[in-house]
Amino acid sequence: MTDSLDFFFDFSSPYGYLASTQVDALAERFERSVRWRPYLMGVVMKITGSVPLVTRPMIDAYSIHDMHRSARLLDVPFRLPDPFPVPSVGACRAYYWIEARGSVAARAAAAALFRALFVDGRNIGETDVVLDVLAEQGHDRTEAADALRDPAVKARLEQAVEDAVEIGVFGSPMFVVDGEPFWGHDRLAQVEQWLETGGW
Amino acid sequence: MTDSLDFFFDFSSPYGYLASTQVDALAERFERSVRWRPYLMGVVMKITGSVPLVTRPMIDAYSIHDMHRSARLLDVPFRLPDPFPVPSVGACRAYYWIEARGSVAARAAAAALFRALFVDGRNIGETDVVLDVLAEQGHDRTEAADALRDPAVKARLEQAVEDAVEIGVFGSPMFVVDGEPFWGHDRLAQVEQWLETGGW
Repeated sequence: MTDSLDFFFDFSSPYGYLASTQVDALAERFERSVRWRPYLMGVVMKITGSVPLVTRPMIDAYSIHDMHRSARLLDVPFRLPDPFPVPSVGACRAYYWIEARGSVAARAAAAALFRALFVDGRNIGETDVVLDVLAEQGHDRTEAADALRDPAVKARLEQAVEDAVEIGVFGSPMFVVDGEPFWGHDRLAQVEQWLETGGW
Repeated sequence: MTDSLDFFFDFSSPYGYLASTQVDALAERFERSVRWRPYLMGVVMKITGSVPLVTRPMIDAYSIHDMHRSARLLDVPFRLPDPFPVPSVGACRAYYWIEARGSVAARAAAAALFRALFVDGRNIGETDVVLDVLAEQGHDRTEAADALRDPAVKARLEQAVEDAVEIGVFGSPMFVVDGEPFWGHDRLAQVEQWLETGGW
């Protein structure tokens, strides 16, 4: 394995979810590992002056159509949950809590959280739902509930958001490969070409 | 030829320029013609609440990097002009004036206007520069100057903008194929798949 590929996303991002179903397999073909780096895009959107696509006139209808169409093309199940978007702070804290004990379990939890929201329409913005998902993944519910309130876990997420801002990450998904940032699910094709060619 | 593919763009859009260098060849492979439909994205951005990427913190630096990187990948010359963005109303009027007399000449003028802005860094936001480019394309400069002030030409552009809004167009580039809208230069890959497969 050479350098890893960084995969930044927000748990409430449909395109982040779509990318999460593709990025590991893509990187593996080029013998790269992927570092999943969930963060709170909402914090950064205050800096960039962005608002969710689904709240913008004209763009809302297009985006919802495009999310479903892109999911069908990938043959990935997808629904737009209601409510949407949802706060992702609980899911993010859960991720970093589990990651400290092992990245494989963290990856599995992340995939389960994404599926809960975008396949089953469960509101992972609610702490109880996050805990349900973690319990289904074999984590102790009480221990998990404590972790989501743990100042050390909160600090870990704050650091993750700061790190994202520091290197210029503002969207979901964003990929960083060999120091090159790529924004958007639809930039995975360029990420692939970058890995294939070593850059241009 | 079956139904044409609609290519909506703003003359001041870097990704519109990049797409303009690709879309005809792509469509031709599937025996489709392309209808170039320049419009004033600024009018629609007031509806969608959008501002230019290059004016948004964090997104500005990424976008400028991405434009150059995408141009290099396509092997297309590109520079970000200064000033940027520029008003595109004169270029749009010029396009529709020429189109009324022939789409081949209009396509050539559009390509020349894009090159003037994004290759040579000439400010096509100024009427004089638009007229220079048209003269270089063999159009009569005085006749062109009259056309840019002609109420009928102005009305034609207003209609083009209204038509774009009516069918939900808000970005540059946007493609409409078989009634399906695709937003962004990086959606050309999906447009290609749509043409290849007949849709999904």
